[in-house]
Amino acid sequence: MNLSPLPNSPLGVFDSGVGGLTVVRALREILPNESIIYLGDTARVPYGSKSPDTIRRFSVEDTQFLVAHGVKAVVVACNTATAHALTTLQTTFRVPIIGVLGPGVEATLADPACERVGIIGTAGTIRSHAYQHEIAMRRPDILIEAKATPLLVPFIEEGWIDHPALKSVLRDYLKPLLDKGIDTLVLACTHYPLLVPVLKRMLGQKVRLVDSASTCAAHVKAQLEEAGLLRTAKSKPTLELFLTDHSEQAENLAKRFLGGDFGRVKKATL
Amino acid sequence: MNLSPLPNSPLGVFDSGVGGLTVVRALREILPNESIIYLGDTARVPYGSKSPDTIRRFSVEDTQFLVAHGVKAVVVACNTATAHALTTLQTTFRVPIIGVLGPGVEATLADPACERVGIIGTAGTIRSHAYQHEIAMRRPDILIEAKATPLLVPFIEEGWIDHPALKSVLRDYLKPLLDKGIDTLVLACTHYPLLVPVLKRMLGQKVRLVDSASTCAAHVKAQLEEAGLLRTAKSKPTLELFLTDHSEQAENLAKRFLGGDFGRVKKATL
Repeated sequence: MNLSPLPNSPLGVFDSGVGGLTVVRALREILPNESIIYLGDTARVPYGSKSPDTIRRFSVEDTQFLVAHGVKAVVVACNTATAHALTTLQTTFRVPIIGVLGPGVEATLADPACERVGIIGTAGTIRSHAYQHEIAMRRPDILIEAKATPLLVPFIEEGWIDHPALKSVLRDYLKPLLDKGIDTLVLACTHYPLLVPVLKRMLGQKVRLVDSASTCAAHVKAQLEEAGLLRTAKSKPTLELFLTDHSEQAENLAKRFLGGDFGRVKKATL
Repeated sequence: MNLSPLPNSPLGVFDSGVGGLTVVRALREILPNESIIYLGDTARVPYGSKSPDTIRRFSVEDTQFLVAHGVKAVVVACNTATAHALTTLQTTFRVPIIGVLGPGVEATLADPACERVGIIGTAGTIRSHAYQHEIAMRRPDILIEAKATPLLVPFIEEGWIDHPALKSVLRDYLKPLLDKGIDTLVLACTHYPLLVPVLKRMLGQKVRLVDSASTCAAHVKAQLEEAGLLRTAKSKPTLELFLTDHSEQAENLAKRFLGGDFGRVKKATL
């Protein structure tokens, strides 16, 4: 275990797969001097359809891997893992653990006009009631309508973002939320930033979209500043990408989520 | 390891998830006196999008679990695992190992009028070229057109079998196959029997559907007869269901694939 994290140690980030690279992309924009070790558990992806016990066990193993690599903090770049395992991770490990949920909720409530919130995510995230609970604790007056949308990740991974079938699926998924007159839609899955263009076209200006990737990155920056953990080295920061299963498909997807290239992918065994 | 399998030992069946229960359903119809132990690796499902190495490693672990439970033969009720791991399993274990691929190919070629074969399955199954190779070895004159159809399993698991979006997805997936004038369509995934009604409506009488679940069951029966391994006990046969991740969703899906009820699901740790 990393007992005395040094500012120049890398930041650790994990996700069930490569979707969490949307968070890495946002981190690199806002914290361009940080080195990052990313772990994608592509051998066991997805987490969103699995049980709380299994999600917690996998999340502990992911964090163990990053801690063994000497990271100074761990970002849980997966809404399902955050919803089910954040408290377990925070009580099990000594390094700071930051999830995507808190920052997403803060960004949701930052707009005082927000009165009716829709939430979409994996079955695991929605079933955990973690977002619903966190929002209701802070603003009990807000109407919350949550909907599990398990087909969205497969469509994104298939690359069918402009397919008419995706629009038909989205229309059905969003109908109960729009029927309630939502003014805000929380994208509670790190895959979903890729759907922002199609969602904007479907929802127009009426509904504000909250993307947990960018809000999480801003929160990480504030936490590192507060803890005096910002990297001070002048050398070029690095990005190391570990996957538990390495396929060409995962690598191509990774490039799309990261919005750029990376070096050789390394194989991780948990 | 089970060195001297007794006829009254159970049959072992495994799949990446609960889709392989379509094979169990077919086995119970044709071999009503057999006891069955089923293992669904629901903690790591799906296999179809993962790399050959990982699929082989998972398949060996699944088989080890069944062999440790004293099964007399192992049925690989997963096309992806059969395509990548059957040879490894057959050379690693001493019990007979039967996959879904061979019987599916036999059933495909049983109709002498078959000249143009379409194959649909997971990315892993199609990428392995196992079906294409097996058909081409026996009938080099046949035209083969294969297409990975990774969105079908998520739709089936979401239960959206009559949704217009599924039809739109199917139309796009099947177009290159129909453009080649296929007369036979191999459903190279044990989830797909649930799509038979919608496929029949879309394809009419022109295209024969080959479902690997029922052809595999017939093959298992012949193999057990030949090896003198049919169960002779007069007591009621049992069905034991082990899952590596147990959720309500998996249990509901399992009932749909099995087409009936079962006892308490047991947790397996691999």
